[in-house]
Amino acid sequence: MKKLEELLETLKPSIQKFTTISGTPTALYEPISYILGLGGKRIRPAMVLASYKLYKDQISEEAIELAEVVEMFHNFTLMHDDILDGADLRRGQQTVHKKWDEPTAILSGDLLQILVYQKLSKIGNIAILDLFSSMAVELCEGQMDDMQFETMDNVKNEAYIEMIRQKTAVLLGFSLKAGAMLAGASTNESDDLYDLGIAIGLSFQLMDDYLDSFGEKAKVGKRIGGDILEKKKTYLWNEMWSSLNPTEQQQINEAYKLSEEETIQFVKSKMKETKASNATLELAQYYTNTSLNLLADLEFPNDKSYLEEIVQILSGRES
Amino acid sequence: MKKLEELLETLKPSIQKFTTISGTPTALYEPISYILGLGGKRIRPAMVLASYKLYKDQISEEAIELAEVVEMFHNFTLMHDDILDGADLRRGQQTVHKKWDEPTAILSGDLLQILVYQKLSKIGNIAILDLFSSMAVELCEGQMDDMQFETMDNVKNEAYIEMIRQKTAVLLGFSLKAGAMLAGASTNESDDLYDLGIAIGLSFQLMDDYLDSFGEKAKVGKRIGGDILEKKKTYLWNEMWSSLNPTEQQQINEAYKLSEEETIQFVKSKMKETKASNATLELAQYYTNTSLNLLADLEFPNDKSYLEEIVQILSGRES
Repeated sequence: MKKLEELLETLKPSIQKFTTISGTPTALYEPISYILGLGGKRIRPAMVLASYKLYKDQISEEAIELAEVVEMFHNFTLMHDDILDGADLRRGQQTVHKKWDEPTAILSGDLLQILVYQKLSKIGNIAILDLFSSMAVELCEGQMDDMQFETMDNVKNEAYIEMIRQKTAVLLGFSLKAGAMLAGASTNESDDLYDLGIAIGLSFQLMDDYLDSFGEKAKVGKRIGGDILEKKKTYLWNEMWSSLNPTEQQQINEAYKLSEEETIQFVKSKMKETKASNATLELAQYYTNTSLNLLADLEFPNDKSYLEEIVQILSGRES
Repeated sequence: MKKLEELLETLKPSIQKFTTISGTPTALYEPISYILGLGGKRIRPAMVLASYKLYKDQISEEAIELAEVVEMFHNFTLMHDDILDGADLRRGQQTVHKKWDEPTAILSGDLLQILVYQKLSKIGNIAILDLFSSMAVELCEGQMDDMQFETMDNVKNEAYIEMIRQKTAVLLGFSLKAGAMLAGASTNESDDLYDLGIAIGLSFQLMDDYLDSFGEKAKVGKRIGGDILEKKKTYLWNEMWSSLNPTEQQQINEAYKLSEEETIQFVKSKMKETKASNATLELAQYYTNTSLNLLADLEFPNDKSYLEEIVQILSGRES
């Protein structure tokens, strides 16, 4: 992770700054510094800088601002999504609406979203601003689809992939594309980087879904089997479900009367039997390969090893 | 209202357009067209156009877009504020989080806010974009103060005025200032119009508070006495409360054990006895006079009668 660490070192002053953001009334600003201070890999801002560095040797003040934009926006989505999902914990700490209350989490999130746009307009690049808004619209659409899928029995694979593209991948696509645009890349070049971000995002989300059921708790950093208990309609679930006959589907539903641990074990065994687990890994691998091939084909003025390392990390090969 | 009607006529196609906004998933877009279709005076977009017309004879496409921005943003704040306030009704219809649910109202509101910025970046004026974000930050701050005041016994008048300046007046200030900026007004001119918007906003909010207790239901369009039942810490309430001795304050608290109608009547009688009702009217009148004097002193290339009529309407002199 040498390359990533170098980028994160560049981001340190920003992270320090935006985790200590303050204003009046304090009750409005505290949740913002709180959620931004909870940590995380900071992979999105690193992607902005990695993309920028493909074209420029020195990272500019504006590139740092753009990196801050994506991290702040990501945390805005987390603050509101945690309300939507009724989540109590985020990175092992209380979510904002649990630590404070829902009105505070709604309003602080709204403010954070405004601060994001304030920073974007300071950068002053209208094309990036437009790209950001289009991305943000898609992200809301993906989030709504995700909520609606919860109440459905089964979701078609195409619909699931489209949902994670909007909910997860477009922000990664934006991070790479906008970083390149800011550095003066051509439309074709920045479009290619957008496609790369999308492929990385799909691979990352599919691996994330897989590890939620088949990862090791210590590595994943959260309880294994959460998606199964919520009957989350992931690719992994849908592949299993569509391979089962009505009797077997009934068995799955019955398994939810067992203890949580037994439910998880039973569903996992069905995911393996139906080869849904393999299919998920294979699709994640497909998108990782797409990413690596795209990256290999692209030519840039500068070193692309920063970006290569990020692809490796997000595809779960290195952590 | 001849002048205002003329402006609203200009806005008709926009209003038609944004009350039928659609997209996928529909569950995300329907609440937006719903709330924008609930009506209202559309006074904020009319203020943008009135201000623009001070400098330009013909209303441009961009001026219309800017008018749409303020109406959409206003409705975004309503959608989220209704969750914060736990309000069931908005303009006699179900609020979004009641008709759908809270997650939908949060997410549709977030999308509406993004659509606002998308429109702003289409207009492409960075100074207006910055002004908008600063205004929106203040509006969030005012909303948080308003929530925090609810749990306080008494609020100082200066704090209350500052709160309504942020929560209500800055959007009117923005509407006038941004309309003028778009029309090419100088910094001094547009600053004067901002001040005018603030004075109009303060006058409007104080009258609104007064009418909530002392208006006629038919005219006000909602139940009289709602603020009293919520013990809302308005200027009207605070003026009364600070004039009462502890025994009388105790009497007020006791009155809340009576029927709602009796509570309202008792508190209103105390508001009259302490002259809090008069003081509120006088302060509203003071800000109306400030508005009218400001407007009389300012000189513009074009007719200012549009703006004069709006000041009259918002100060409650004409409806």
